[in-house]
Amino acid sequence: MSVDAALRERAARVIPGGLWGHMRAQGLPAGYPQFFTRAEGCRLWDADGREFIDFMCSWGPIVLGHHDPDVEAAADAQRRAGDTLNGPAPVLVELAEAFTAMVAHADWTIFAKNGTDATTICVTTARAATRRRKLLVARGAYHGAAPWCTPSLLGVTAEDRAHLLHFQYNDLASVEQAAALAGDDLAGVLVAPFRHDYGIDQELPAREFAQDLRALCDRTGAALILDEVRAGGRIDLAGSWESLGVRPDLAAWSKAIANGHALAAVTGSERLREAAASIFVTGSFWCGAVAMAAALTTLRKLQAVDGIAHMQAMGQRLRDGLAQQAASHGFGIRQSGPPQMPMLLFDDDAEAVLGSAFCTLALEQGVYLHPKHNMFLSVAHRPQDIDLALHATGRAFAALAAGRR
Amino acid sequence: MSVDAALRERAARVIPGGLWGHMRAQGLPAGYPQFFTRAEGCRLWDADGREFIDFMCSWGPIVLGHHDPDVEAAADAQRRAGDTLNGPAPVLVELAEAFTAMVAHADWTIFAKNGTDATTICVTTARAATRRRKLLVARGAYHGAAPWCTPSLLGVTAEDRAHLLHFQYNDLASVEQAAALAGDDLAGVLVAPFRHDYGIDQELPAREFAQDLRALCDRTGAALILDEVRAGGRIDLAGSWESLGVRPDLAAWSKAIANGHALAAVTGSERLREAAASIFVTGSFWCGAVAMAAALTTLRKLQAVDGIAHMQAMGQRLRDGLAQQAASHGFGIRQSGPPQMPMLLFDDDAEAVLGSAFCTLALEQGVYLHPKHNMFLSVAHRPQDIDLALHATGRAFAALAAGRR
Repeated sequence: MSVDAALRERAARVIPGGLWGHMRAQGLPAGYPQFFTRAEGCRLWDADGREFIDFMCSWGPIVLGHHDPDVEAAADAQRRAGDTLNGPAPVLVELAEAFTAMVAHADWTIFAKNGTDATTICVTTARAATRRRKLLVARGAYHGAAPWCTPSLLGVTAEDRAHLLHFQYNDLASVEQAAALAGDDLAGVLVAPFRHDYGIDQELPAREFAQDLRALCDRTGAALILDEVRAGGRIDLAGSWESLGVRPDLAAWSKAIANGHALAAVTGSERLREAAASIFVTGSFWCGAVAMAAALTTLRKLQAVDGIAHMQAMGQRLRDGLAQQAASHGFGIRQSGPPQMPMLLFDDDAEAVLGSAFCTLALEQGVYLHPKHNMFLSVAHRPQDIDLALHATGRAFAALAAGRR
Repeated sequence: MSVDAALRERAARVIPGGLWGHMRAQGLPAGYPQFFTRAEGCRLWDADGREFIDFMCSWGPIVLGHHDPDVEAAADAQRRAGDTLNGPAPVLVELAEAFTAMVAHADWTIFAKNGTDATTICVTTARAATRRRKLLVARGAYHGAAPWCTPSLLGVTAEDRAHLLHFQYNDLASVEQAAALAGDDLAGVLVAPFRHDYGIDQELPAREFAQDLRALCDRTGAALILDEVRAGGRIDLAGSWESLGVRPDLAAWSKAIANGHALAAVTGSERLREAAASIFVTGSFWCGAVAMAAALTTLRKLQAVDGIAHMQAMGQRLRDGLAQQAASHGFGIRQSGPPQMPMLLFDDDAEAVLGSAFCTLALEQGVYLHPKHNMFLSVAHRPQDIDLALHATGRAFAALAAGRR
């Protein structure tokens, strides 16, 4: 029995379903490991010692690569002083200043631990500011795992969702319809910077769509809330909609902002400040100073090395290579969304049978891809890593083609 | 201007209200610092270099003392391997096994980051298991900062609280009344191991009260949920109600379980396992391996050194000394709850004017107390620390008495 299988057996006894949430390996093809023992840069080792070039980056958090020496040095220095104290360390102020300076719409910042904390704080702030209740969200979008937003309705009450109204991403008419239903009770519009829903092609926002959402919020007094949890730090550090000329009132950040250390953030504009100060949100570890020191260095380094341009270039190099390989082996594939957050789907493959087979073959060749979820590049991915990965995916395509014959 | 004041000025510009939540210094007397730069064992240094013997332990998380060498060695070793990966590290299984073995009612464990995550998972699991909605909670009890439980109603909708029914702690008749209102829709009863509400005397549970809650849940099929977030790790590692002969169906843990590293846990009994596996709860950092390695060592060390007995003895030493000092200076004080989680209130002092003055004087003498919230002992508090603290509080009582004349 593999080490991974033995660990799964033990886990199944003491953890419901073997694991909770998005990292549960049941969502992946057989052959994917559940447990990992080591990581370095863009490489990952599973419990059986298999090494992978990794394109999930821990589902987003790893943006500079594992064990980035600068981030870890900053974290170590803060750790030697103190982490969880009776209040924050001075690094809180430095980080809040850095965030507020970096993010174009931001006049203030609040820190938390989970992406769900951040989206929930945004919604609560919008409701406190407007004294209204209704929230518009895109159908199928993921905004966290609390009762008001979790994708499964098990254990959730109807009241938890009572004030949600749905629209279709990139379809302003559907937004206007939902806003009309909300009437004078519209507190906010919560939207991801681009459509990155599970299992379907990613979709960039039409400039007009983003601008019309802004105009709708301006007209109604509702808060425009950008959910940067997944995309933040990989599109534009000033805000993922800066290139569209659209700035939100509130934004939720997490995942990539501290290179794997547990941190989330909410940024807000001046008119929401008083509301944000009025609500009660907190957590025992939200002032933890080590994650903040890690974040400060992560953000500075991303800026200093122009990390986003690098991730984009590496993602494009991967995308071009995969497109060429698929074509040469006669497979129709679709690669959608920003290249630094790739999504790879096969044509006529609604159940991802082909995609899963391809990803399993790539895994056997030492490349960790995901058949249904968007993936992530990091600054630690160098051209030679991409080329090695493409060498492996080339063999995977060849094997897939051989199996088809 | 003090360093702390300068930091507060900067913070006020970039953080709503200067800080969010329970660590906001506005809740403390003037003179209390907001920012801290260093901690070691049971000592804490503020941004102006003042040293304190600390009785807040970071509001609970620090249970072995800051920089416990064994915990940090385990955390370091895991950190060198990897922290936030594409899935959990093997330490997840070890920790889940340890938790399940340690906690008497537990057949399984789920890990998260915030205490609020843990209480929310308990409630969601209870609802999924029972297919019912109503939740009984004690009036005034704190169970987290999500919309369904946060103490402030700003930004919260009526629907977020639609299924809450309230009872009075230690008053079974009020529980039965609330249960009658819930009728056949009672999903669970959420209760703290003892009453540790803000600003009032703590109250231990009557054995009969705890047993009757258990009987009520057995009779109705509702889940008995013990909120161990604050008390867990300081009363009884097998469960805070073990001495009462009462075991819950679900329990929420956080704060002290990883000695300051961000971690929360839910333990559950077999009949809730399937429901816990069915719900979708997750977070980007919930599989973080460093906090789990820290927790494994924290729990083992607490057992190995009988940390709870030590904290209790140190808390009793402090309590006895304070009682003697108060009496000798003619102050009526009340010390309530378990000695290792002290609450100190002055008689005829509803606004905590006297308590605040005393705590401010103690702070000036190098002892960090809280005038309105329960405090915490740690294993790092040695008899000589308590005696030094008592020397300081003796001077504080003397100064308070001098001021009264």
